[in-house]
Amino acid sequence: MSQGFSPAFGAELDRLMRWRRDVRRFRTDPVPEAIIARGLEAFGTAPSVGLSEPWRLIRVESAAARSAALCNFEAANAAALAGYAASGEADRAAIYAGLKLSGMRDAPVQIAVFCDEATPKGAGLGAQTMPEMRAYSVVCAITLMWLRLRAEGVGLGWVSILDAARMARDLGAPDSWKLIGYLCLGWPEELSDLTELEQAGWEPRVGLPRMESR
Amino acid sequence: MSQGFSPAFGAELDRLMRWRRDVRRFRTDPVPEAIIARGLEAFGTAPSVGLSEPWRLIRVESAAARSAALCNFEAANAAALAGYAASGEADRAAIYAGLKLSGMRDAPVQIAVFCDEATPKGAGLGAQTMPEMRAYSVVCAITLMWLRLRAEGVGLGWVSILDAARMARDLGAPDSWKLIGYLCLGWPEELSDLTELEQAGWEPRVGLPRMESR
Repeated sequence: MSQGFSPAFGAELDRLMRWRRDVRRFRTDPVPEAIIARGLEAFGTAPSVGLSEPWRLIRVESAAARSAALCNFEAANAAALAGYAASGEADRAAIYAGLKLSGMRDAPVQIAVFCDEATPKGAGLGAQTMPEMRAYSVVCAITLMWLRLRAEGVGLGWVSILDAARMARDLGAPDSWKLIGYLCLGWPEELSDLTELEQAGWEPRVGLPRMESR
Repeated sequence: MSQGFSPAFGAELDRLMRWRRDVRRFRTDPVPEAIIARGLEAFGTAPSVGLSEPWRLIRVESAAARSAALCNFEAANAAALAGYAASGEADRAAIYAGLKLSGMRDAPVQIAVFCDEATPKGAGLGAQTMPEMRAYSVVCAITLMWLRLRAEGVGLGWVSILDAARMARDLGAPDSWKLIGYLCLGWPEELSDLTELEQAGWEPRVGLPRMESR
């Protein structure tokens, strides 16, 4: 019944999921296009509500586009830091200031991932009471690509400290495209199974979710 | 650099991702709790914005809670069907009427997954300009559990044809909990790598995503 997936495969999958870290420190050497292609194939196997496949990808390569994206992050990051400082959380602000929260200066591959909220594909099935299912489908796809890349040692960092509307405008995305994430891809500078936030003492990980019952 | 993940593992992972189908036809025999537990462990390895781990799970077991959930789905499903019929899309309405869009009558394990939009954990890091990152974190976690369960042959169906606010109320969830998905788990009645929507001619799958460049 398991289509032949062995317990050993399951154990390796567990190990991959633990290694799947958000990476912000990248080496600058290139990632082979064949690995990117396998990541995109995994992306395309994702479930999508009504088979709407609402994902839209823009690879950010030009100096102008990268610079606009980096400025976007830096402005949002400075505003966040100012917020922690202004709220009197001096410790938080100090930790925040020391965190590296994006690899946008170094990551050799950068992809902005959008959801087309106006796609006719799927005819709205499954998205009438919960239209956010379209965005969730895109998140599933990113998660699959993330795992697939990491199985080849390539790290991914998901940047969300951004003005999403400005990013869409700067990249010339149509009005109906909503930014889901800005992804940095590359070889991790170092290997760790601890996240930056755990290492810096921002927040510990609980891990296993609690489940209530009704 | 790949922490020892072999090409053979990568190929098996690709196969798992293709098998990871949304399942709506379940056998009613129970799923061992040890498999559920491994699924939840995978869930807990998910990335979360600011390490906020905003997921909240309710296992829906009582007859009363299951009945309320099923009524919720049936009302939303009937409204969707009426919408296709009223819009003059007779073909769409006919196909829709024949689709099985939830396994809620049969699935032995049912879990409502929420996002706590008010969690203080993570102190808002990464979620100030894009607060939807909290919900996206929960979607990542569901995706990991989905894969892990499927590696043991257990299918998952994500039901979104629901009044989310009513579901939260019916399950007694706090006001700050937003429903992300209602998950049906169990042994698939049959194995297919084609989705119900492809089989029924609702929508074909494209698969590999297009990527533009800037």
